[in-house]
Amino acid sequence: MEDLVQKIKAGDTRALSKAITLAESKRQEHQQQAQQLILKLLPLTGRAKRIAISGVPGAGKSTFIESLGLNLIQKGHKVAVLAIDPSSSISGGAILGDKTRMENLSRSDHAYIRPSATGGDLGGISSRTYEALLLCEAAGFDVILVETVGVGQSETLANDITDFFLFLQVSGTGDDLQGIKRGIMEITDLIFINKTDLYQRQIITDAKVFLHRSMQFLPQKDSGWKRQILKGSGFKNIGLDEVWQRIEEFYQQTHDNGFLQQKRLQQNAKRVFTYGNESISSLFSNYVKHHPLSDKDKEALALNQISAYELSQKIIQQFLKTMH
Amino acid sequence: MEDLVQKIKAGDTRALSKAITLAESKRQEHQQQAQQLILKLLPLTGRAKRIAISGVPGAGKSTFIESLGLNLIQKGHKVAVLAIDPSSSISGGAILGDKTRMENLSRSDHAYIRPSATGGDLGGISSRTYEALLLCEAAGFDVILVETVGVGQSETLANDITDFFLFLQVSGTGDDLQGIKRGIMEITDLIFINKTDLYQRQIITDAKVFLHRSMQFLPQKDSGWKRQILKGSGFKNIGLDEVWQRIEEFYQQTHDNGFLQQKRLQQNAKRVFTYGNESISSLFSNYVKHHPLSDKDKEALALNQISAYELSQKIIQQFLKTMH
Repeated sequence: MEDLVQKIKAGDTRALSKAITLAESKRQEHQQQAQQLILKLLPLTGRAKRIAISGVPGAGKSTFIESLGLNLIQKGHKVAVLAIDPSSSISGGAILGDKTRMENLSRSDHAYIRPSATGGDLGGISSRTYEALLLCEAAGFDVILVETVGVGQSETLANDITDFFLFLQVSGTGDDLQGIKRGIMEITDLIFINKTDLYQRQIITDAKVFLHRSMQFLPQKDSGWKRQILKGSGFKNIGLDEVWQRIEEFYQQTHDNGFLQQKRLQQNAKRVFTYGNESISSLFSNYVKHHPLSDKDKEALALNQISAYELSQKIIQQFLKTMH
Repeated sequence: MEDLVQKIKAGDTRALSKAITLAESKRQEHQQQAQQLILKLLPLTGRAKRIAISGVPGAGKSTFIESLGLNLIQKGHKVAVLAIDPSSSISGGAILGDKTRMENLSRSDHAYIRPSATGGDLGGISSRTYEALLLCEAAGFDVILVETVGVGQSETLANDITDFFLFLQVSGTGDDLQGIKRGIMEITDLIFINKTDLYQRQIITDAKVFLHRSMQFLPQKDSGWKRQILKGSGFKNIGLDEVWQRIEEFYQQTHDNGFLQQKRLQQNAKRVFTYGNESISSLFSNYVKHHPLSDKDKEALALNQISAYELSQKIIQQFLKTMH
């Protein structure tokens, strides 16, 4: 354990990977070890810029991240790329091609790319990307790009662990653009209209106008930050410097007005509840494993003499009695 | 309450809607009322054919469901259409256009269409579609079509409350077809290649061959049921009678070999655990609401003196002490 702590502090990415694997493990003792590890590294965490990168399918997230990452490394940053994929409980594996993606970025010593792990929903555990993020910070990475993969809740999860939310969009008709869910628009800090090298200028302008107009109807962000729209091409590395400039402005502004600290505190408070919930759930799951339904209960269920809900309430009472 | 019970038993769809709204409410007393209601109606449940209908975006689910529903009504069935949408916590509302969809079907007295409700993830409550399903059964609907909306976990959730899983697919290249997740293929009982009126015959045949080949690598279903591939058009009402014929064969077969009873029992056992988990989670959530983080705790979090995980473990111990 102490060895792992020292190696992570020294920026050893193999040790980092090992620690993240520990955190992502479904075995309880592994998770507890990971949490102990994080506790020891805690003073080294919290110093990175944490940026969520989301986008519609086909918006070119990987290419964008790779270009942005390479730019940042040139500026002297150390960049980690993590992924949030809550839907992987069904796909049941790492994202296809994840290891071969971002080839140029992954060759750099100043980059660390973690393919998304199988999520699964056993025991209420949703995602360990936050643990991975803390470990990356402890290992000296000062920019963490959290890519949302899959759909649905991944944006909320990403928003819960990052400071800045970047949304990639491609040009298209009003219909396509309306497809962005309002909830995502609300949390977005910057929309980047990507792949401008592939579209006619008029279509890009139209998209920008449309997005600007849509944004007018959104409530102001708590951070005081005004949502931005930029355009360019991840593939051709056009417009990415401006993206980074805006992100730095965001950090300056929210550092000065105290929002950044406040947001991270709120995230942590929410996390305390999430962890608590997971632990309770895991205790209950353990209890159920050791006290399976009796044949009598099963028969009553099959005969509709008791509802699943009613039976669950009985079991909870028994569980809570054994827990005090 | 007794009034609601009687009206639902009589097939009153306004009473049914009211009961489902109660079940979907986030307020605990509403949910408890709904569960009491279900308990009283329990002897009337379990008799419908419960069918999940999923598919890639653009596969024509609504049109297919409308045509199938109208066919079934002609055969003398009463058809309810429900939706599962776990991702709606972000979209934050009913599915766009849900109310105006399936116009012809919704005009029939023998159909009941319930737009999907806001899911939300407050207190660990994921979906109340199962409650809606039971209530529809009690109201005399003997075919329940559960449409999966959104992506990710909705298929798993649908599979947990239905007997038969139907997957809609459109023709396309191997790449498109490979996009179906293995996990979904595994739970599928029948793939319907839809919109055959729009594609060239060769492309449809190729798709069928490809899907057949993919299926060979899947493990046999526990039900003993051999996965089927059919083709046709929901819009033109081609091939839907055959779909229903196969579904009836499935029910005959799994009734005879005991699988149907066994699957529903397994679903119920899983549900007991899910309900238990939700209740525990809700108790914990309530506790946290009444015992917010102290300023001291917040400061320790902000200063990285304690991790969110560590703090959560303390709080859990306090919670369990108050619960016995």
